[in-house]
Amino acid sequence: MTLSGRVSEIRQEFAVRYTYPVCFTRAALDPDNPALPNVFREGGAARHRVLVVADQNLLAVRPNLLDAVRRFASAHQDLVELVGPVVAVVGGEPAKRGLTTVRRLQRVIERHGLCRQSFLLAIGGGAVLDAVGYAAGTAHRGIRLVRMPTTVLGQNDAGVGVKNSVNAFGKKNFLGTFAPPFAVVNDFDFLATLPARELRAGIAEAVKVALIRDAAFFRELCAARDALAAFEPRAMEPMIVRCASLHLEHIRAGGDPFEFGSARPLDFGHWSAHRLEVLTAGEVGHGEAVALGVALDSLYSYRRGLLSREDLEQIFEVLEGVGFRLHHPGLAGLDIAAALEEFREHLGGSLSITLLAGLGRGVEVGEIDCRLMEQCVEALGERA
Amino acid sequence: MTLSGRVSEIRQEFAVRYTYPVCFTRAALDPDNPALPNVFREGGAARHRVLVVADQNLLAVRPNLLDAVRRFASAHQDLVELVGPVVAVVGGEPAKRGLTTVRRLQRVIERHGLCRQSFLLAIGGGAVLDAVGYAAGTAHRGIRLVRMPTTVLGQNDAGVGVKNSVNAFGKKNFLGTFAPPFAVVNDFDFLATLPARELRAGIAEAVKVALIRDAAFFRELCAARDALAAFEPRAMEPMIVRCASLHLEHIRAGGDPFEFGSARPLDFGHWSAHRLEVLTAGEVGHGEAVALGVALDSLYSYRRGLLSREDLEQIFEVLEGVGFRLHHPGLAGLDIAAALEEFREHLGGSLSITLLAGLGRGVEVGEIDCRLMEQCVEALGERA
Repeated sequence: MTLSGRVSEIRQEFAVRYTYPVCFTRAALDPDNPALPNVFREGGAARHRVLVVADQNLLAVRPNLLDAVRRFASAHQDLVELVGPVVAVVGGEPAKRGLTTVRRLQRVIERHGLCRQSFLLAIGGGAVLDAVGYAAGTAHRGIRLVRMPTTVLGQNDAGVGVKNSVNAFGKKNFLGTFAPPFAVVNDFDFLATLPARELRAGIAEAVKVALIRDAAFFRELCAARDALAAFEPRAMEPMIVRCASLHLEHIRAGGDPFEFGSARPLDFGHWSAHRLEVLTAGEVGHGEAVALGVALDSLYSYRRGLLSREDLEQIFEVLEGVGFRLHHPGLAGLDIAAALEEFREHLGGSLSITLLAGLGRGVEVGEIDCRLMEQCVEALGERA
Repeated sequence: MTLSGRVSEIRQEFAVRYTYPVCFTRAALDPDNPALPNVFREGGAARHRVLVVADQNLLAVRPNLLDAVRRFASAHQDLVELVGPVVAVVGGEPAKRGLTTVRRLQRVIERHGLCRQSFLLAIGGGAVLDAVGYAAGTAHRGIRLVRMPTTVLGQNDAGVGVKNSVNAFGKKNFLGTFAPPFAVVNDFDFLATLPARELRAGIAEAVKVALIRDAAFFRELCAARDALAAFEPRAMEPMIVRCASLHLEHIRAGGDPFEFGSARPLDFGHWSAHRLEVLTAGEVGHGEAVALGVALDSLYSYRRGLLSREDLEQIFEVLEGVGFRLHHPGLAGLDIAAALEEFREHLGGSLSITLLAGLGRGVEVGEIDCRLMEQCVEALGERA
């Protein structure tokens, strides 16, 4: 305790350590697959109480998932006790529209008497994982969460990180917590059931992170664009692993995993993407919005003299090559100044927008010329 | 990335560092007091957006608090911008009964456009701080929270720690997060407005932590019991600082601040205290319930042969000396097995109950003899 005149002070200081595995596999629920059993073993040599929550959209295309869960649990009775039937929750963005799903899950957690050492195993897309994560992160101040992302976006981005959230009061991701998962098990087999639009969505995040971080990865995506456009596993799977790995590295090595200070998430192109999703009431999905946002901020980077014309053309080529449209009528309704202000508030502190100073080289700027940005929006429209 | 047969794995690993000051002072809102200005300065050399939330019960006895806040802010305009008038929230346990207060605060935070670098300054008792903490911990995944606890219990225990919570689905503290504050400013002047019952409540936590951790502190409490019974500042203030300091040390040095593993909070006597509060619908306050719980588990420790009769008598003497009654008719309604099970669930994992193996020496046991515990409840009743 230090004393200085009329104030005495105790300085509290400690660190909280987190560690979790992010696995890539196939047939994760196959009783012989060691990935999930290893996860439960990491929780101690006990028989663990587990509640499985699954995405309704997924159950619709994979009705045998319920059997697979039962088979897995009965093959691993020494490790796993299912506390009840699989809880189905609404899939896609509706899962995180307000607190309906979260409240329902918190109530189920309470009813089953789950404790902080029990497990929630969440199987679904990014939005479902976000909502389940918020419920798991707040019940008893945090129950162990194993995420099994079933979309490309979930596996290479949202599902491997340390955040959860739901939309509230008309703002995307307004409520949430930082709550690292107990483990992430990415099962590539789930991708086979996805529609083209969902598959494509996840490619946008890979292009985004490659552009700001990893020129070699961008060149690979460029070279693989036809295989990616056809969603060939030989191109999709390495793309997912590399993208997830860059995200994990950013969290680990960035020095500020919970973004207390000026640490920035990998959100190139996201300020407009967030608004576009809201403006079109979800008609433009997150991946599509990110592709548009990346195109817009790349164009702005070029017009600001940061990026060469050649690099810009290559970015457009990759995005269009994998099947994104680089314009949407909804863009015309974008209030640029308001969107930037909402983004600033979302980040906290002063505005910081990522631009490109080359392929693989993101740079932060503190100001955006709204008039120039408007011209970029118009130019994307004319181009289309 | 490691490969083992059909699973490849990336191991994510990082630490999150927390540091915050816990200050003890008087007249914290006096423009000349450096405590709060130093807190805001720690947030950066900017002008900070601040929303003040205050306990209605406190405002009723300290109507000049609103003026004091305004005076403070106008004397420190370089540091502080009040985004709106002080938000008054219902005081005492009703603040954390369900999510009403939390929802209201989240909405106010959204309306004022607070960001992750903005401040909530919460002035009130432990329950108010808990509810404000949950709102601050979840809006934008965490807004900076400065706690100004105004009760003894808030200043020496609940207000200095890393948790927040509200009651939900009939369970105490069922929803919450681990969210260390940005700073804690304990202003002793607030204690002058407290009724005797509130003042006494905080002494129970000091007796509790002394009993399990610090024999010298227990002897001091014992020696000071008449001054404590009269709530003399010369006895109360060192008691508060010492008790807060033991709590902070437990969090810092315990190795598991967020209680992921087997780390235990300092909750001697709490398994029955939690139930008694619920059973009596709050008629027995938290401090009174803790005093009863401490008496009960001390008696049980004695009957189990862990504690000497002399030590037990001394514990009863201190608790009664500072004014606690060691029986309540509500105790008769206590379902011991059910209360232990709920406590186990709340902690997570297997049951672990703190008993005493001497003054200042807490020990953990994994089982309670319910029949013997019932006899202890009866014995407390007969004693009264």
